[in-house]
Amino acid sequence: MHRLRVLNEQRAHATTTSGETDTPPSMRGVHAIAPGVYAITADPPPHGRLARAWHRLKRVLLGPPLPSGRERRERLGWLAALAILGADAISSTVYGPEEMLRVLSQAGVPAISAYALPIAVAIVALLGILALSYWQTITAYPTGAGGYIVATDNLGRVPGLVSAAALLIDYTLDVAVSVASGVETATSAVPLLVPFRVPVALGGLCLIMLANLRGIRTAGALMSAPIYLYIFGTAGVVALGVLHWATGTLPPYAPPQSAQEVLNRPVETVGLVLLLRAFSSGAVALTGIEAISNGVPYFQPPEARNAHRTLAGLAIVFGALMLGITFLCGAIGIVPDPTETETVHSQLTRTILGAGPLHMVLEASALLLLILAADTGFADFPRLLSLLAHDGYLPAAFGVRGARLAFSNGIVLVAAIAAVLIVVFRGSVTALVPLFTVGAFAAFTLSQVGMARHWWRRRDPGWQWHMAANGLGAITTTAVLGIVVVSKFVYGAWMVVLILPLLVLAFHAVGVHHERLTRHLHIGSAHAASRVLASPMRHHVVITVGRLDRIVLQAVKYAHGLNAPIEAVYVTDHRARGEELRHDWDAAQVGVPLVILDSPVRSFDGALLRYLDFVQKREDPHCFLTVILPELLPTRWWHPLVHNYFAWRLKWVLMFRPRTAVTSVPYEVRE
Amino acid sequence: MHRLRVLNEQRAHATTTSGETDTPPSMRGVHAIAPGVYAITADPPPHGRLARAWHRLKRVLLGPPLPSGRERRERLGWLAALAILGADAISSTVYGPEEMLRVLSQAGVPAISAYALPIAVAIVALLGILALSYWQTITAYPTGAGGYIVATDNLGRVPGLVSAAALLIDYTLDVAVSVASGVETATSAVPLLVPFRVPVALGGLCLIMLANLRGIRTAGALMSAPIYLYIFGTAGVVALGVLHWATGTLPPYAPPQSAQEVLNRPVETVGLVLLLRAFSSGAVALTGIEAISNGVPYFQPPEARNAHRTLAGLAIVFGALMLGITFLCGAIGIVPDPTETETVHSQLTRTILGAGPLHMVLEASALLLLILAADTGFADFPRLLSLLAHDGYLPAAFGVRGARLAFSNGIVLVAAIAAVLIVVFRGSVTALVPLFTVGAFAAFTLSQVGMARHWWRRRDPGWQWHMAANGLGAITTTAVLGIVVVSKFVYGAWMVVLILPLLVLAFHAVGVHHERLTRHLHIGSAHAASRVLASPMRHHVVITVGRLDRIVLQAVKYAHGLNAPIEAVYVTDHRARGEELRHDWDAAQVGVPLVILDSPVRSFDGALLRYLDFVQKREDPHCFLTVILPELLPTRWWHPLVHNYFAWRLKWVLMFRPRTAVTSVPYEVRE
Repeated sequence: MHRLRVLNEQRAHATTTSGETDTPPSMRGVHAIAPGVYAITADPPPHGRLARAWHRLKRVLLGPPLPSGRERRERLGWLAALAILGADAISSTVYGPEEMLRVLSQAGVPAISAYALPIAVAIVALLGILALSYWQTITAYPTGAGGYIVATDNLGRVPGLVSAAALLIDYTLDVAVSVASGVETATSAVPLLVPFRVPVALGGLCLIMLANLRGIRTAGALMSAPIYLYIFGTAGVVALGVLHWATGTLPPYAPPQSAQEVLNRPVETVGLVLLLRAFSSGAVALTGIEAISNGVPYFQPPEARNAHRTLAGLAIVFGALMLGITFLCGAIGIVPDPTETETVHSQLTRTILGAGPLHMVLEASALLLLILAADTGFADFPRLLSLLAHDGYLPAAFGVRGARLAFSNGIVLVAAIAAVLIVVFRGSVTALVPLFTVGAFAAFTLSQVGMARHWWRRRDPGWQWHMAANGLGAITTTAVLGIVVVSKFVYGAWMVVLILPLLVLAFHAVGVHHERLTRHLHIGSAHAASRVLASPMRHHVVITVGRLDRIVLQAVKYAHGLNAPIEAVYVTDHRARGEELRHDWDAAQVGVPLVILDSPVRSFDGALLRYLDFVQKREDPHCFLTVILPELLPTRWWHPLVHNYFAWRLKWVLMFRPRTAVTSVPYEVRE
Repeated sequence: MHRLRVLNEQRAHATTTSGETDTPPSMRGVHAIAPGVYAITADPPPHGRLARAWHRLKRVLLGPPLPSGRERRERLGWLAALAILGADAISSTVYGPEEMLRVLSQAGVPAISAYALPIAVAIVALLGILALSYWQTITAYPTGAGGYIVATDNLGRVPGLVSAAALLIDYTLDVAVSVASGVETATSAVPLLVPFRVPVALGGLCLIMLANLRGIRTAGALMSAPIYLYIFGTAGVVALGVLHWATGTLPPYAPPQSAQEVLNRPVETVGLVLLLRAFSSGAVALTGIEAISNGVPYFQPPEARNAHRTLAGLAIVFGALMLGITFLCGAIGIVPDPTETETVHSQLTRTILGAGPLHMVLEASALLLLILAADTGFADFPRLLSLLAHDGYLPAAFGVRGARLAFSNGIVLVAAIAAVLIVVFRGSVTALVPLFTVGAFAAFTLSQVGMARHWWRRRDPGWQWHMAANGLGAITTTAVLGIVVVSKFVYGAWMVVLILPLLVLAFHAVGVHHERLTRHLHIGSAHAASRVLASPMRHHVVITVGRLDRIVLQAVKYAHGLNAPIEAVYVTDHRARGEELRHDWDAAQVGVPLVILDSPVRSFDGALLRYLDFVQKREDPHCFLTVILPELLPTRWWHPLVHNYFAWRLKWVLMFRPRTAVTSVPYEVRE
């Protein structure tokens, strides 16, 4: 043993020197830039047709890999920021009023004209309170802070995780609702698409995912064009409509055929529950309002001032559109389409402008706006996951940037969840909205409470005013959250109420586990390290064998090179077959003893595990086993489907066995 | 090097002796029964709560594992065989006539009364020809032979594979159609189930799958009870109906509400195409007729004579039911329900017996019959897969018997495919029937052609008669196959026409690959083996490192025990981070050189692969690399989701790299 150790150390030393030699062999893509440091400038070319095709497809769809540090963070002026960071909030004006009208329409058309505007006023008032609250957040965190950071900083770990879970739900539903609403906008113009609602939504989702994996951050100016087109177009429609209304020349309203049923509904008395439900549905329009305080670092300096200006602008634009759309819908008598074929927004513009090219252009701008809103979710979800991964609450995989610098795993995950939501809820905005609102308001509430606590703890000059603003926000959002949860519970809010705590529990468990692990794995000192390395480790090698062929022979040869006793093990339910193998084995003079395990119930994995227990008991309970799995090297894409079935099974069961290294030794058949 | 080899051989020898020592340490479940042979009588207990729960659930659902050779093959008398082997064919009388009527009803109700009986007569004539043909198969293969064996034996490899592919499609659709028809039978009695058609079908499928995984082969008597109840019950209904008809006292017919539309259909002239389509739909009733010639070994001796008797019995029973049901449906004027809520069989018995308990009992027997028919597919599909796996056309996994002696992988596979079919076709028998008929008749044709060839080659005395019978069968089934493919092409037959050749190509490719592989891997002689073992193999070890912790330290210690030069490799996009690690590494005196790979595009897998190419070029192109992946031992069910992300990724890319062993070295944290 001792002699071996010495020899091995000499070898190790020899490598050290050879690894640091002055003239290393050169190779394309590998450059020695310092002793023991290599720059790898090119990946090896992919092997095989399928791998090459996959590689080429990835190149075409995603573009060439980008080096780290090439992330351009474009600074936005307040006008561009209003478009880009406001896309999520402004896009809610497409579906927010519609969902409110839909609830009211259950009590007949008169309920709409009577209650729509008051509810819209209440929602705009709520918007004012939220804007005031987030104004304080920008003041307090001039470098930007999302709800997770605000809640963690000021309320502690668990509220931070609750906020994170609520935001993740919020972002996922932002993606799903925006895409679903985008499809509804598309079907407003092209009703032929109605039967393909779900496939169209999934296709759109896929495209947005690819764009995000590619990491395109298009220039602000380019992105703001459709948004401003939407804002000014819709504002123009509203202004024109109000003018018509004032002069009594409103054009006649032609409801979509499928909405006829709504017009014929019996009139019912409107109860408080219905009003609260309508308010909850309309409140979905406020989602996305927090994006500006998250995005402070993206502003041109002075960041905080520009952010404040944008927030004010957003509140004005959003409030005006919300009130204008709701007022005009009431004045014209527009009813939501129960089949979700034509949006209320489209009905409105169609009535005012007529079904011509202008209407088409405005609906196209709404569609682009909704796609950009989905894009917000695609950007924020993975970013929050990477923060959580960095803090140890999620696997490290979510903190890894892909070839295009985007957090690819998070992007794929949010797309997958949104796809499931779209399929399960058949692409219906109405079905998704209750889930969306709960997630958003839970995050709002925690953020406001956190900010109130922030001012209380700091007591900077004038803290009372800041705290009052955030306190008002906290109280209001708490009340709205309560209203939303209760009034929408049976309509889907229960799912969020169920999933949110489960998410928090999972994050917490993973966080505790990572903390404990870090403590366990830490090496205190050089002395501790040398103590670990100096303690002896006995090896014992077991080769699993199914028959005697060149694959096994190569594995035996490989094992001979290791410095440990070796045995080969064959499991069978038929002892005679084992004896046949032993006969061949002895004839071939393999030079390694063959052990036959007779398992009458054909439990191949179980029998091997049992025998490994036995070996460890026999040899030394602390000996480290190495199980060698002789495998065939796959050289075609379908080989993994056909070969190495037993090796895969054993890898799975051995994965959970302590003190057991598992070695795959691949045999290459050259054809 | 030489000294090491000698030492290692001494060690190997030492193990040989210790492995065969006279007093090995004893252990529960491991018994030395001869030198180097152990009987493993018990699996190790499962670790962890989830594994224990899973183990317990499996025990409850599937029962304790059964030792090999405990497979009881119950021998059947001809009456029991008629029930069990005939279940598939007899069950077709539930949906066969219905599908024929459905096609005819497209030209209005008069088309049914005019053409249903003639088509049924044609189908029964076809049945006679098929029965005569399979009579010859039983004579020729008194030990039993399915279509795959008959076609391979007599026509060769590729026709055998075509037959196998056709049969696999046939069996899968037998499962799907029987379950779907069973659900329709259930909704006939309990219309409340209609909206849950698909979930109910999937639940039923799951139960039949579990029963098959459990490997229950219930006593013949028990299983034949519901079948004979169905046969005599339906025959009684038919006889009673004919009596009523003869005396002019047929009860009035109350069609299901959803069938009203059929009664109001305009009368159209009946074209040849419609008649052929009706015939093709009705011909689905003939599927399953081959089961008796497959099942000859299950008969009591004299096997062939009993099988002949059963075949004759089946032909008589089936023909009588088919004609009787079709005649009465025409006489009463029964129309198929376009929503597939009430079966024609149920309408018939309801009309004759009234909607009372008798009707319920008869429908219950039809349901049980259909479940048993699905069971046939569950038995035959995995058995055929195991034959194909044995012949090298499929992965070995399909030839492995599970804990209960059933071919578990095949059972799960057929259930999965049938589930997909049921979901895609929304549980509609009508939609599935075209696929079913094509598969069945393709298999019939190849089997008959094979038999004709068989007699031609053998020319036993009297071969002319046998060959004439099979020749007639071959010509007829070929013609019917042509009719079915053409008339049902757009209704789904195209899928089979597409998939069948793809399956054959896949089987063929895998077969050729396995053959080549066997040649490659064969070791000619002891000399060849010793030559392989004697050639030198240089080892080189690379440890992948993400940080310096106890996991890595253990992996380094493990590597020290191997007899090879070692280096540790760290990939980063940030060289400074690498230098930090090197500082800690040197401070801890790890004793292994650390190489830093700087990959600016964060291609961790690619950079490592590139560097491995480089190492092999530097050291020796033929040296065998061992990549050591330091891993954390998962001790909770969710650990695999949270840990070892990079190790999993590397395992995947390294799986395709020649001359590279991959070793997982797990570190156990004791909490």
